[in-house]
Amino acid sequence: MKFTMNRAVFINELSVVQRAIPSKSTIPILSGLKMVLTDEGLALTGSNGDISIETFLSSQNEKADMTIESTGSIVLQAKFFGEIVRKLPDNHFSFEVLDNLQVKINSGTAEFVVNGLSSDNYPHLPIIEEQNQLKLPARVLNKIINETVFSVSMHESRPILTGVHFTLENGVLTAVATDSHRLSQRQIMMPSSTESFDIVVPGKSLTELSKSFADEEEMVEINIMENQVLFRTENMNFYSRLLEGKYPDTKRLIPTAFETEVEFHVPSLMAAIDRASLLSHEGRNNIVKLSVESDKVTIYGNSPEIGNVQEDLSFNKISGQPLDISFNPDYMKAALKAFGAIDINIRFISPIRPFTLEPTDTEISFVQLITPVRTS
Amino acid sequence: MKFTMNRAVFINELSVVQRAIPSKSTIPILSGLKMVLTDEGLALTGSNGDISIETFLSSQNEKADMTIESTGSIVLQAKFFGEIVRKLPDNHFSFEVLDNLQVKINSGTAEFVVNGLSSDNYPHLPIIEEQNQLKLPARVLNKIINETVFSVSMHESRPILTGVHFTLENGVLTAVATDSHRLSQRQIMMPSSTESFDIVVPGKSLTELSKSFADEEEMVEINIMENQVLFRTENMNFYSRLLEGKYPDTKRLIPTAFETEVEFHVPSLMAAIDRASLLSHEGRNNIVKLSVESDKVTIYGNSPEIGNVQEDLSFNKISGQPLDISFNPDYMKAALKAFGAIDINIRFISPIRPFTLEPTDTEISFVQLITPVRTS
Repeated sequence: MKFTMNRAVFINELSVVQRAIPSKSTIPILSGLKMVLTDEGLALTGSNGDISIETFLSSQNEKADMTIESTGSIVLQAKFFGEIVRKLPDNHFSFEVLDNLQVKINSGTAEFVVNGLSSDNYPHLPIIEEQNQLKLPARVLNKIINETVFSVSMHESRPILTGVHFTLENGVLTAVATDSHRLSQRQIMMPSSTESFDIVVPGKSLTELSKSFADEEEMVEINIMENQVLFRTENMNFYSRLLEGKYPDTKRLIPTAFETEVEFHVPSLMAAIDRASLLSHEGRNNIVKLSVESDKVTIYGNSPEIGNVQEDLSFNKISGQPLDISFNPDYMKAALKAFGAIDINIRFISPIRPFTLEPTDTEISFVQLITPVRTS
Repeated sequence: MKFTMNRAVFINELSVVQRAIPSKSTIPILSGLKMVLTDEGLALTGSNGDISIETFLSSQNEKADMTIESTGSIVLQAKFFGEIVRKLPDNHFSFEVLDNLQVKINSGTAEFVVNGLSSDNYPHLPIIEEQNQLKLPARVLNKIINETVFSVSMHESRPILTGVHFTLENGVLTAVATDSHRLSQRQIMMPSSTESFDIVVPGKSLTELSKSFADEEEMVEINIMENQVLFRTENMNFYSRLLEGKYPDTKRLIPTAFETEVEFHVPSLMAAIDRASLLSHEGRNNIVKLSVESDKVTIYGNSPEIGNVQEDLSFNKISGQPLDISFNPDYMKAALKAFGAIDINIRFISPIRPFTLEPTDTEISFVQLITPVRTS
């Protein structure tokens, strides 16, 4: 295996694959980068056992400016090899596998010789069985992920809740995440889709996936296998294991009738919640209180040691019954962040029932649920 | 104590003083910000016991747009008060000390009430006895600090070495730092100065000081007291304790005769040392080897587990005897960083004697010393 190529292009590929590679692993070969060179081009693979990323750089890619002298494969310690390539002096570098799995890297007058491992020992990736395909732009997939993934549970006590529940049925793609204190549900119309599926993807995989796309407009093909999902773009295969088990039925959790409704502009509500949470964070319970009257909405926060805060909120509209309700401001901040700078309706039933947040634009099927905190 | 003022101007002052305030302290009042309001203006004070910073904002400052209703003083928990002021909604805020040392802060529709402490319990700062004055621009002082402070010792085994030794004598200001493995000495001519002093300032104080100036061109007045030094600008008093004890005589450590001399351009040498240190960092000893021949300079780094590197260095000139010498590349990188993008001479006596680095521009009196590592 021997080639020369443009260093910046290689670093770009490597950066994508390195997302999957742990800097330390109990399985030493998993801290390695697998490189396979054929006449068609260079394939890089990285994996942490849960997610695996594979990229392919064509030998015809002009920017890569690749010269292949001989093909082959090798596994290199990813962290060091990455640092070495990033610090080489020249625009190009050459790469040659010597005897004993050693690799010689030259660039300018610098010459590195580093120890490699045989690619025969690298774990095999799942075989793709083109089924349950769904195609959507990276931008849309990223949006769905960012609108739900923050609500997954961080606790392994109910492992299924650490994932996002994706279902495709009757041309509707639904993503739901809940940690049992709050819930985010986003739906997207997929009118051309006749397939159906029901999977739970680990939140961590989705967070990495959303950072891995080269271009927001590129198309992502979703292939679902036995216990794996593959997100495939033109130059990248992103595999994640699926969570096993049945995701709870969340449809019945979302209330449809309300007693009180307030319309807010998200950025101004966000700033006020942020201020109120300054003091609640210091209290034992981390709660703020919202008081809705017929013509006024006030937020209260306090910490016995530091002090207290109150602020009259600006709002667009109020309707329904007066109400006092207490909640964790961090759940509210995360929910508001997912909406961006839009107008939303917050709808309440009673101080002890979950309340919902939804865009005023009814074209957007996005609902968030927050469970209040009972105060005596 | 009651006033209103521009929030951005206040935050600016607070940021300077907060450098000195620890977020947690075994002496609770030291995690507080002391505020003293007189008809002349607002003084803020913060201290961690080692360093103390005092700023003064005149009531005549137009940008501050201060309205003083009543004067007084208070101590507030600095971290929270800082976060509160930074997050307030309006351009201005009002501040009022209520009964029981509570403070009411209003801005827009937000109202905070926070608990304060009596300023009577705040420690007194040293009294300034205008003596041993030296004046120089912040830019020059910052440069001297950045050229030496990285060489102070991080270990408390010899506390005096954790400081920078400043002496003023016969119109020459000398700053020296050494951790006994390397040394940095910078001298500046002060022809108009007739004073003399000999002090050791803690490295940590100098690092904070160098970040505290509002303007690189403002003049700094240095006043030395019994066991304190005061760096004074128009609007800031920065106090630091001095280290007690006698600083070792470092003059005799700097050699004056050499066997081998190589001239380098700093940025290219830096990049090569950086590459070589990639592998040496993984070895047990963290050393790189430099080999000087009559027409070639080569650097070598290796790690038994990862591999090795060698690189022919670009240089301007070589003179003297061939030599192989090993050293810690991190000391070399720190020394090179302090020079910036200039040309330097590195001068060697033997593989076991300290070598020096100096600018080729002999107008700059700046010498660095690195002790090599003996290899068998």
